[in-house]
Amino acid sequence: MKVSGRFLGGACIMSALLILASTPARAEVSPETAFVFNTFSFLVHGFLVMWMAAGFAMLESGLVRTKNTATICLKNIALYSVAGLLYYIVGYSLMYTDVSGYIGSFSLFYNPSEAELALINADEATPELIAPVVDNGYSVMSDWFFQMVFVATAASIVSGTLAERIKIWPFLIFTVVLTGIIYPIQGSWTWGGGWLSTMGFSDFAGSTIVHSVGGWAALTGAVILGARKGKYTADGKVRVMPGANLPLATLGTFILWFGWFGFNGGSQLALGSALDAAAIAIVYVNTNLAAAAGVVAAMALTQILYKKIDLTMALNGAIAGLVSITAGPDLQNHLLAIIVGGIGGCLVVIAVPLLDKLKIDDVVGAISAHLVAGIWGTLAVAIFGGGSLVTQIVGIVAIGAFVVVTSSIVWLALKYTLGIRVSAEDEEMGLDKAELGMEAYPEFGHGSQTI
Amino acid sequence: MKVSGRFLGGACIMSALLILASTPARAEVSPETAFVFNTFSFLVHGFLVMWMAAGFAMLESGLVRTKNTATICLKNIALYSVAGLLYYIVGYSLMYTDVSGYIGSFSLFYNPSEAELALINADEATPELIAPVVDNGYSVMSDWFFQMVFVATAASIVSGTLAERIKIWPFLIFTVVLTGIIYPIQGSWTWGGGWLSTMGFSDFAGSTIVHSVGGWAALTGAVILGARKGKYTADGKVRVMPGANLPLATLGTFILWFGWFGFNGGSQLALGSALDAAAIAIVYVNTNLAAAAGVVAAMALTQILYKKIDLTMALNGAIAGLVSITAGPDLQNHLLAIIVGGIGGCLVVIAVPLLDKLKIDDVVGAISAHLVAGIWGTLAVAIFGGGSLVTQIVGIVAIGAFVVVTSSIVWLALKYTLGIRVSAEDEEMGLDKAELGMEAYPEFGHGSQTI
Amino acid sequence: MKVSGRFLGGACIMSALLILASTPARAEVSPETAFVFNTFSFLVHGFLVMWMAAGFAMLESGLVRTKNTATICLKNIALYSVAGLLYYIVGYSLMYTDVSGYIGSFSLFYNPSEAELALINADEATPELIAPVVDNGYSVMSDWFFQMVFVATAASIVSGTLAERIKIWPFLIFTVVLTGIIYPIQGSWTWGGGWLSTMGFSDFAGSTIVHSVGGWAALTGAVILGARKGKYTADGKVRVMPGANLPLATLGTFILWFGWFGFNGGSQLALGSALDAAAIAIVYVNTNLAAAAGVVAAMALTQILYKKIDLTMALNGAIAGLVSITAGPDLQNHLLAIIVGGIGGCLVVIAVPLLDKLKIDDVVGAISAHLVAGIWGTLAVAIFGGGSLVTQIVGIVAIGAFVVVTSSIVWLALKYTLGIRVSAEDEEMGLDKAELGMEAYPEFGHGSQTI
Repeated sequence: MKVSGRFLGGACIMSALLILASTPARAEVSPETAFVFNTFSFLVHGFLVMWMAAGFAMLESGLVRTKNTATICLKNIALYSVAGLLYYIVGYSLMYTDVSGYIGSFSLFYNPSEAELALINADEATPELIAPVVDNGYSVMSDWFFQMVFVATAASIVSGTLAERIKIWPFLIFTVVLTGIIYPIQGSWTWGGGWLSTMGFSDFAGSTIVHSVGGWAALTGAVILGARKGKYTADGKVRVMPGANLPLATLGTFILWFGWFGFNGGSQLALGSALDAAAIAIVYVNTNLAAAAGVVAAMALTQILYKKIDLTMALNGAIAGLVSITAGPDLQNHLLAIIVGGIGGCLVVIAVPLLDKLKIDDVVGAISAHLVAGIWGTLAVAIFGGGSLVTQIVGIVAIGAFVVVTSSIVWLALKYTLGIRVSAEDEEMGLDKAELGMEAYPEFGHGSQTI
Repeated sequence: MKVSGRFLGGACIMSALLILASTPARAEVSPETAFVFNTFSFLVHGFLVMWMAAGFAMLESGLVRTKNTATICLKNIALYSVAGLLYYIVGYSLMYTDVSGYIGSFSLFYNPSEAELALINADEATPELIAPVVDNGYSVMSDWFFQMVFVATAASIVSGTLAERIKIWPFLIFTVVLTGIIYPIQGSWTWGGGWLSTMGFSDFAGSTIVHSVGGWAALTGAVILGARKGKYTADGKVRVMPGANLPLATLGTFILWFGWFGFNGGSQLALGSALDAAAIAIVYVNTNLAAAAGVVAAMALTQILYKKIDLTMALNGAIAGLVSITAGPDLQNHLLAIIVGGIGGCLVVIAVPLLDKLKIDDVVGAISAHLVAGIWGTLAVAIFGGGSLVTQIVGIVAIGAFVVVTSSIVWLALKYTLGIRVSAEDEEMGLDKAELGMEAYPEFGHGSQTI
Repeated sequence: MKVSGRFLGGACIMSALLILASTPARAEVSPETAFVFNTFSFLVHGFLVMWMAAGFAMLESGLVRTKNTATICLKNIALYSVAGLLYYIVGYSLMYTDVSGYIGSFSLFYNPSEAELALINADEATPELIAPVVDNGYSVMSDWFFQMVFVATAASIVSGTLAERIKIWPFLIFTVVLTGIIYPIQGSWTWGGGWLSTMGFSDFAGSTIVHSVGGWAALTGAVILGARKGKYTADGKVRVMPGANLPLATLGTFILWFGWFGFNGGSQLALGSALDAAAIAIVYVNTNLAAAAGVVAAMALTQILYKKIDLTMALNGAIAGLVSITAGPDLQNHLLAIIVGGIGGCLVVIAVPLLDKLKIDDVVGAISAHLVAGIWGTLAVAIFGGGSLVTQIVGIVAIGAFVVVTSSIVWLALKYTLGIRVSAEDEEMGLDKAELGMEAYPEFGHGSQTI
């Protein structure tokens, strides 16, 4: 049996339909109209989240050095592609197939329902053909599309942390496993109706299920891969390796912020009732306020700590604010969203130098912004939203442990077979020349190529 | 009493609902369906306008010099954040609270209506719970979201003009006052149902209320702040200080154009009827044609005047075309939109050198594109749309006077306390190093930092 | 008689309405609700396609050399503007005016229907005013907007191929003819209900009608214009002239991918029924999978052929995958979409060096990605979707022949009057200085201007 959509969120498509059926005519949203709204919500919010792939690409392009820029561009478009293919081939079925019926019902490739195909292929759209389609509440492939772009987000987080030293193909093989196996299995525990869902674990749009998962996989990779050459000197100093193109990093952050309205708003999973529309509006507002608070908090804190504002911290403050609110963007008092996002913005300012002290080299600050803020946001649901803090901790720990263990196995297997790290010479020369044989900016700066 | 939404625009949500209630069943849009459409229109068009913040960031990043690029990126993400927070804390309430009931009903922070929360929190969505929500026509927070992104646009305009010499924190303090106090007060006069609304002042999406307001605040700041060092030489020459990254400026312009469909289209304030949907389609078409005409007119005029096309003028021509049509994008003969936008494009080509003659240093041409074209567009409503030219002039002058006076007070207060201008040495060195201690492009061009 | 919308696609607005009228009340989408959905689909999907203009601008900006970057930015914003104006003045009427009534009914300028204006201008929206508007199925100007952005796409393809050597104004004059005459005439054959439509030629969103048309016009131009100076040496070598800014090219590709959901999804031409919503969801999924397969296939093939992955090939692989699926994104087995897109990705890797062997100088690979993949995608409809391969070939050949002949006439007429190619000195110096008198990146790399 397919378990369609996530279980969380205020969205209650079926109950909404039942209620509508029992109310007087003419005032309400008809079931077919609700179907169109719900489907269109998945598509519109889905394309916003797809656009976040470009956001990660620009953010990371802006924060690496020129000699590794083309490679990070390639990794980003490649990982989005791999994630989509794998989630089609195996991931979605794995995540949303009822675990009890797993062996019997699981199948590769996820295609439109027979009811939908019957309707589309019929000469005439009769009520008998429409009814079973509408009964599902939304088009099955619109849901697939929306869930697919989420797995791509998780994969995007990893590429930033491991930039400037990881080989392309091993990275992509890791992406295959992450998006085809690791992400879907842990996702099924909550959004697929599994044990964490039963337990009451609450993660509206994925502070833990998406962002922390990406963060744990990135952290595991960073530890196994090691820091960039020269990043940490023998005498304990941290060498700054500034990003080459900060306007692109800024653009990337704006893209992420923009796309996050889809990420959180679409996670209501329905639009076809006044309840759902009003709930989505609340989600949009909280999402924006938390990000804004993250920026202001990160700016203020860097001003206090370092007497200067740091642009990259402000950008990461926005992302941390967004990640923080992702587990509970349905807060009904918007002031709380400001607090949640503001604390997220502070956490990233604290976490970035802390990781450096631990000699964990995260090129773009993704572990701080996605993992640390993701944990905070998931706890905040219980603190401000009223759920069980223990359950939230159980979810965080269980998913973290699972991802760390499985990621470690994959990273280590790759390390001792294909190898995951480029040679010291290639790292020095830059991955663009070494792995791609090209330059991102052949006419600028260190570009050796003359025209 | 809250006055929800703007009063202008062909949108007549309540009358639409009344009409629907009196028509035969089945043919029409049900009230709840209309509620969902109206809410979704605010959200979709709102996220488009939010995206314009990225457009301003890229436009300005492309038009400043490399040594000030990181600072302008920071200012743009910071001002968008500040605008959102302030509009939540005080701005929206100030703008849409009935002036007569101001003292009694005004309250900080704007949260979802009790009716919406009751519906969302109920175990069952009964007709009794749905009705009061649907009666409002749209979700209250979706309207907040849509109005919030407008105030951010006004603030974005200021940052471009004052780039390359203003201190960050004083600029942000000005943004606090602009978005929390100045913008909402003048906005309440028209969109909040105040005296300009009563008088019949017509500004569909804000040529004056948004763009000119930003333009006046920028102009006032530019006069008080003074020109960049060396911009105007003693012998009356104007030194060209070319933007460092024109593809980014082009990208920014495309983003603005794209987002403007939300800016103008969403200002219909409703989508839930055939009338509103058809009206929005007309708005989209006029918006696109006016921008296109602005580009072509600016190109043709620079070719005639200077024997060369100027890319930055073409970009500003697009923006001027868009600003021009913003006061009246509901024109029913699209040819008129072409004329309005084309004249806007010409105005920017004329205004930019004129301001230089007056030694008013506008780094990105924002005063020409937003203030001059905004005035033109507001007049054009009367000329082509048939309203009162006198009323339009009263609105333009009243709002202009108010913004100039209040902005001057804030700018001067800041000037004589914190100071608003960086030191001559810092200006020479660039704000990125002076204010942020970093570089936007450390490996390119003048980048001194070697890796 | 106006022929509204395209004839292709599963969308059957009128039949949907008829069916709804015969079904029991309350369960279905009311005609006015369907009208709003259909109109909003054109607008939302239309703004996504409009955004593709920015994608082409960034892709081309990234793939030319710095000395020609500002010019390609200008061409892109100018061509989008020209396309919109021409399609308003003459193109749309030409494309969607019934050929039999052409002489009698054709008129310049396309404005809202009288029924829509009557509704909008009425004091009260009576059922009598609403009915004739709703009967059309969608707002006429929303359809215009959606069709307009398609013609802009066709024009965008040409600018990339001919970059770095064509004069600006002759290029724009060609764009006038392409978007005002050539594109609409061939478009009328299929989407305007002409002879190819009657014959059964199937091109859902325009692999041939949009992408190949742009490709043929580009190819014709490239042959007549000749290669860039020094591109092909006397001894048969091909000189690599690498793009100056690969992150921008990556951004452009992501923008195109994002916009393509509008391009293909909106071509369903309706959203107002469960059938249409489900069909659009299928289109989105196929679009994404084909692009992903194009990337992976192009990466794998370049790795095999050249032992390195090529970023620009991966980007063109995405585009080729998208173009390939555009003729038939309604495939009901998504695995087929992966195959179609994957083959498209391989074709681009093969076609690019092949064109170089023929000394056809295509700066950005647009002929390979849009023409070659466009032909493949159009054939694939018959191969996988079950139509007539012969009919598909007839359509491809007829449209190709028409565009090549008409384009040649225009290119040659321009060549022997205004001239289309800049002088050898100007080409050497770069078009930015020669044609615009400015630089795209005055402070970077070869920038001679010091601040």
